[in-house]
Amino acid sequence: MILPNENIRLLRPYEPGEQPQIAGFIKLNTNENPYPPSPAVLRALKQSIKDRLRIYPDPQFRQLRSITAQRWRVSAEHIFVSNGSDEVLRLIFQCYLSPGDSVAGLFPTYTLYETLAQLFGATMHYYELDDDLRIPEALFKRVPHKIICLSNPNPPFGTFYDTELIALICRANPDSIIIVDEAYVDFAPKHALALVKLFDNIIVTRSFSKSFGLAGLRIGFGIAQPHIVEYLYKIKDSYNVNVMAQIAAIAALQDIRYYRQIIQNIIASRSHLIKELTKLGFNIPPSSANFFFARWCENARWIYEALKRKKILVRYFDHPRLADGLRISVGKENENKKLITALKEIVKNEKKSTKRTKTR
Amino acid sequence: MILPNENIRLLRPYEPGEQPQIAGFIKLNTNENPYPPSPAVLRALKQSIKDRLRIYPDPQFRQLRSITAQRWRVSAEHIFVSNGSDEVLRLIFQCYLSPGDSVAGLFPTYTLYETLAQLFGATMHYYELDDDLRIPEALFKRVPHKIICLSNPNPPFGTFYDTELIALICRANPDSIIIVDEAYVDFAPKHALALVKLFDNIIVTRSFSKSFGLAGLRIGFGIAQPHIVEYLYKIKDSYNVNVMAQIAAIAALQDIRYYRQIIQNIIASRSHLIKELTKLGFNIPPSSANFFFARWCENARWIYEALKRKKILVRYFDHPRLADGLRISVGKENENKKLITALKEIVKNEKKSTKRTKTR
Repeated sequence: MILPNENIRLLRPYEPGEQPQIAGFIKLNTNENPYPPSPAVLRALKQSIKDRLRIYPDPQFRQLRSITAQRWRVSAEHIFVSNGSDEVLRLIFQCYLSPGDSVAGLFPTYTLYETLAQLFGATMHYYELDDDLRIPEALFKRVPHKIICLSNPNPPFGTFYDTELIALICRANPDSIIIVDEAYVDFAPKHALALVKLFDNIIVTRSFSKSFGLAGLRIGFGIAQPHIVEYLYKIKDSYNVNVMAQIAAIAALQDIRYYRQIIQNIIASRSHLIKELTKLGFNIPPSSANFFFARWCENARWIYEALKRKKILVRYFDHPRLADGLRISVGKENENKKLITALKEIVKNEKKSTKRTKTR
Repeated sequence: MILPNENIRLLRPYEPGEQPQIAGFIKLNTNENPYPPSPAVLRALKQSIKDRLRIYPDPQFRQLRSITAQRWRVSAEHIFVSNGSDEVLRLIFQCYLSPGDSVAGLFPTYTLYETLAQLFGATMHYYELDDDLRIPEALFKRVPHKIICLSNPNPPFGTFYDTELIALICRANPDSIIIVDEAYVDFAPKHALALVKLFDNIIVTRSFSKSFGLAGLRIGFGIAQPHIVEYLYKIKDSYNVNVMAQIAAIAALQDIRYYRQIIQNIIASRSHLIKELTKLGFNIPPSSANFFFARWCENARWIYEALKRKKILVRYFDHPRLADGLRISVGKENENKKLITALKEIVKNEKKSTKRTKTR
């Protein structure tokens, strides 16, 4: 039997959240948008189904890049279109990493960065957030890593870091590629796109999976100076993004008003949920994403399991610093209500049973 | 400015065929299916648009793998689902190649293999077909390559090689991964899937882009023993194939009768086209694909250009052994008629003008 490369044999693969293929679950575990895409997106897809399937999609994304460029006031040469933002992350690692290199990331953060580092024979070096989730000072000085990954807002907490801090890291590290992963930025106060003009070592990545509600279609993009973008186009699979995804993304960008509204709804629901869960005894750091991290006073696996029995899925990470909490995606109003009711019951029963145990 | 890895800096990227974004062309240049997908596919997509876009697709493709497995009488563990068959090719190279390794291929063949070899720091070693397009004897003995790529039918000619020959290569090369790229096999007399049970070093790759007419949706698969399939799942992007593609592929496999019919039409049109173009003076080797290679007595670029002026796109390769011909995809009946008419005119005018030149 022929074995693959050692780094692939040893790879611990990324574990995506559960995607139950049976109906009936309230899915608050993978940060999807609870609202459907804009009616304009659905119309555009329906109209295009008949003619566009049998022909290869545009491998250069001319129409989508031009609309994306207008929307964010850059030129089309700055835009790399990808199969979800995961693909642009992988391509950056593939492009710039050699075996033995290292990659920096905050800890905790999106765990895919470590998987990608391993995939290309590099090692992950973590800079641990302090108890207030601040970025450690060391990162504002020169660090010896080929790539520095900054998710902003940063999962699983949803912490937002000011653009000024990111600029400091870019300035201190001209020999590193700085990835600013803005998958959740539409739920946050500010984005870092202005830095792309100032620094030739930054790439900002975006997703249509979250704020635009197109997780099923797999489309995202990266914005960077053309010397980076050109290499990514050079090494991508020829037809990496399918035609339906391109059509949907174009239609979505042409109906920004709809998305502004649902983003406002999600932000309002986030505040409400955080308030209610805090009353129940959860400790929740501020979040600027469409999810938040609710800490309990002990390992929280049992709460995850109790919710799952009630057909509500949230995300539990059996990792250091995370096992005492749950990452919860913000749902639609009725879903959030059901979550609050379920958690009230679960927590109340627990208090009762703890009391009983104590009085025995 | 930070530079990427050397192999990426030096990479000559794959050049996909032209994909004009304006209407009005007869596209016979990228081997798409001229017929639309089955009505069942269109219905399934329309029905699913509303609910399925906002949720991540199944990263394990449970439903699609089970149906694919039934269709080709293997178990689901043998099936890797990919973003077109290009993705599974890239993943095999990524999985098994180390810098300095070599990859074997026929010459000429699908040029992507060489691009992928370069991408992972390997070199391409070609085994040149003889004038009768036979596989050179050397490949039936042990050769020192990590991967051996066999496209069957082999572009740009569409030559079909008997399964027995492929078995001989697998047997002689137990330390190489043998890729049998069957993107066009549904237009050929036989496939090589039986070899997957006999050899643990073979992977057969398939595409929904050609016979199933879903090039726009990007979906394909590989069939191999589970030890290979598992590594491919381990290193793929988490959600590599979008939900619309999965739904369409499932619906397509459930309406095989429709596809048998259009495949029959294409095979019949292929015979007719080859007969007519041979009459015009083209020399065309036998093809078992949905395209063929029409050789002219001299460099054929001018014919490609003359056809393009008439809004008919075919593929011209400015490569050794290929510059005297055109690769032509089989179209619908009316498209094929227009191609024949156009070529008649072009060739007749040429003969006239050659005559004039000679008589002067």
